[in-house]
Amino acid sequence: MPQTVRAEVITIGDEILFGQIIDTNTQWISTELTTLGIRTIRKTSVGDTTDVILDALREAAARADVIIITGGLGPTKDDITKKTLCQYFGVGMVRNQQALDLVTSFFEKRGREMTDLNREQADLPENAEYIQNDWGTAPGMWFDEADTVYISLPGVPFEMKSLMTNRMLPKLKNRFDLPVIRHKMIRTIGVGESFLAEKIEAWEDALPPHIRLAYLPSFGQVKLRLTASGADNEQLGRELDAEVAKIMPLIEANVYGFDGDEIENVVIKLLKEKNLVLGVAESCTGGQVAATLTKVPGVSAVFAGGVVAYSNEVKHIALGVNPDTLAEFGAVSEPTVCEMAEGVRVMLGTDVGIATSGVAGPDGGTPDKPVGTVWIACATDYGTVAKLLKLGQYREQNITLTTNYVLELLRQQLK
Amino acid sequence: MPQTVRAEVITIGDEILFGQIIDTNTQWISTELTTLGIRTIRKTSVGDTTDVILDALREAAARADVIIITGGLGPTKDDITKKTLCQYFGVGMVRNQQALDLVTSFFEKRGREMTDLNREQADLPENAEYIQNDWGTAPGMWFDEADTVYISLPGVPFEMKSLMTNRMLPKLKNRFDLPVIRHKMIRTIGVGESFLAEKIEAWEDALPPHIRLAYLPSFGQVKLRLTASGADNEQLGRELDAEVAKIMPLIEANVYGFDGDEIENVVIKLLKEKNLVLGVAESCTGGQVAATLTKVPGVSAVFAGGVVAYSNEVKHIALGVNPDTLAEFGAVSEPTVCEMAEGVRVMLGTDVGIATSGVAGPDGGTPDKPVGTVWIACATDYGTVAKLLKLGQYREQNITLTTNYVLELLRQQLK
Repeated sequence: MPQTVRAEVITIGDEILFGQIIDTNTQWISTELTTLGIRTIRKTSVGDTTDVILDALREAAARADVIIITGGLGPTKDDITKKTLCQYFGVGMVRNQQALDLVTSFFEKRGREMTDLNREQADLPENAEYIQNDWGTAPGMWFDEADTVYISLPGVPFEMKSLMTNRMLPKLKNRFDLPVIRHKMIRTIGVGESFLAEKIEAWEDALPPHIRLAYLPSFGQVKLRLTASGADNEQLGRELDAEVAKIMPLIEANVYGFDGDEIENVVIKLLKEKNLVLGVAESCTGGQVAATLTKVPGVSAVFAGGVVAYSNEVKHIALGVNPDTLAEFGAVSEPTVCEMAEGVRVMLGTDVGIATSGVAGPDGGTPDKPVGTVWIACATDYGTVAKLLKLGQYREQNITLTTNYVLELLRQQLK
Repeated sequence: MPQTVRAEVITIGDEILFGQIIDTNTQWISTELTTLGIRTIRKTSVGDTTDVILDALREAAARADVIIITGGLGPTKDDITKKTLCQYFGVGMVRNQQALDLVTSFFEKRGREMTDLNREQADLPENAEYIQNDWGTAPGMWFDEADTVYISLPGVPFEMKSLMTNRMLPKLKNRFDLPVIRHKMIRTIGVGESFLAEKIEAWEDALPPHIRLAYLPSFGQVKLRLTASGADNEQLGRELDAEVAKIMPLIEANVYGFDGDEIENVVIKLLKEKNLVLGVAESCTGGQVAATLTKVPGVSAVFAGGVVAYSNEVKHIALGVNPDTLAEFGAVSEPTVCEMAEGVRVMLGTDVGIATSGVAGPDGGTPDKPVGTVWIACATDYGTVAKLLKLGQYREQNITLTTNYVLELLRQQLK
């Protein structure tokens, strides 16, 4: 019977507290721990202050089986993690010959002179197990005291990740009898979190206790994350697949992908399968649809390019939109967005054309076309479909929402 | 005599603990608090579990004057912040009419159906001061209990930032007698952090103790942030201006703006002053230059549009690049990028044209044009200038760097 192992991550450093840098270490660490079957129950960031670090350690020790500490191992005055750990464990500091040799060779290799501060990097708390860091001068440390494992790592992401991947994670795997954790992500678009929740309420309530559900909403999308924990990897996989099979009929129309599939990757994959080339005509999204697609490596096989037709002149010159259409219906209208989608197909000679035209805001709204009024269209050999979106008041949000929705419209047409 | 106000930030949500998403909220929040003169002493992330949240609140209350809680306010089962706050304060839940009206109109505007779960979003702990959220359906909440201020915010970054900026930060400013903190940001581009540090070393060493300097590097830019603290707002302003006057001669060539000026805002301002209209021709940036410009409201006055010429065909059809040029020099070359910049001027009839063409990676590199080889150009009535960039291995980074550098090239030409 595997243990439930709980971990806490403590990040040390003023630069994180004051918002100087974004801490990406803890996100990476908890992802790795989750994959290993260790449950992160808390993350804490504290400054370079002894008392605060001691408090954080004591509190964490009362709750967690594994405590991972990053930062505060550099050679400068404000790096106090090691001294603080000595105080916490009530032990002295000893110089570690293996660590000293490593630091020495590190400096010799780079032809740099070594200072006493550098030598002190080889000093460790007496009760520390020295874990060699081949990627920098700060040592990794492992403590196993009173059934709690303490891991101390440098804050430099590259050194931290290398030490974790190559040294600490394997040691944790041996130290504990861990459960298996599996995730399954179902990606939906165009349906609200609460509406979705009502649709799947009965299914959600019937989930077995070892499978948990989380809703992750962002810009018109809601990701449903299933987390299953147990002993048998295969069985968990089968159980997750069974739950997905049960829920799909309820939400199928809004599901665009699973796990790591972003909407842009899904449409690019569909275009490749069908051997179609896409062209994009953008007004209110101003290039973001094209930019989102071209973030994906290898997109050039199915994406010829696009036109950002911000002014009406460009809509006419570069997309062939009829000036009478613009005059009669305006730029934000079904006829215009359809002519844009069809125009980009003709102008760039692509198989498929998608288009956006709307009032992104904050200005430009009218009583009949308020800010957030957006038309999107998709033109193929089978004809042109357009859709009206009623979005909010915020420019950047409207641009991102429109980008997601026009890619979803394209996906619907390609299916 | 101003108070020292200490804040703690508590982030609620399994998705952060499990590493599903990177928490950028707390970094943003502590930056804003620092600006206000409030010192963040600890950040904590906990899961969607009542007991753990209660512990975190009690611990924080023992140390901090301000506790900012983000997340767990959505309409679904795993959002338990409000219930937990009721338990923490020992109060009941009441439906807030103002909040209900807001949620109702939010759904009416979007023509979406409202559910009981949505109505429940208007339920607040009895002792909460309702803070209107105009950016979403989750309410903001302010509690002032036993000399501690508790602020509850939604986890969606856009809603959180809007609520903080427009509602909570002003309230905090009134609630406490804070020291005066003034910032001055000097924005540089195209020069490395260490190179910059050497140029300004003497100036930096001579800074008075109450003025601190921070280097904030990002994608080819380095922002120098000066933070002055004291009692007299006017005097701090004069001192900061004096320091800027001293440093400018050392770095002038690389300074594109101050404080909130992004490079795109600076070039748009210059275009408006000179009454010029811009067109953009993008290959490797795939639309990001246009998208970056169109994020700025009112850009349509100086931005006609652009062409994302991903394939060589589109470079010829839509930009008039000579097929012989493409055949002889290739797409990633000075002649091609110049013809693109000149072509977009002609095709879209704009005053100025800028263009990008390069190997973004990960594939497509050759011995003489490795990944990271990028040409940028700017064409005006005074002629066309091109520049070769040698960037790194990473696609998204190369796209963002190229976007910044081509906007800087445009700025240089407009000056």
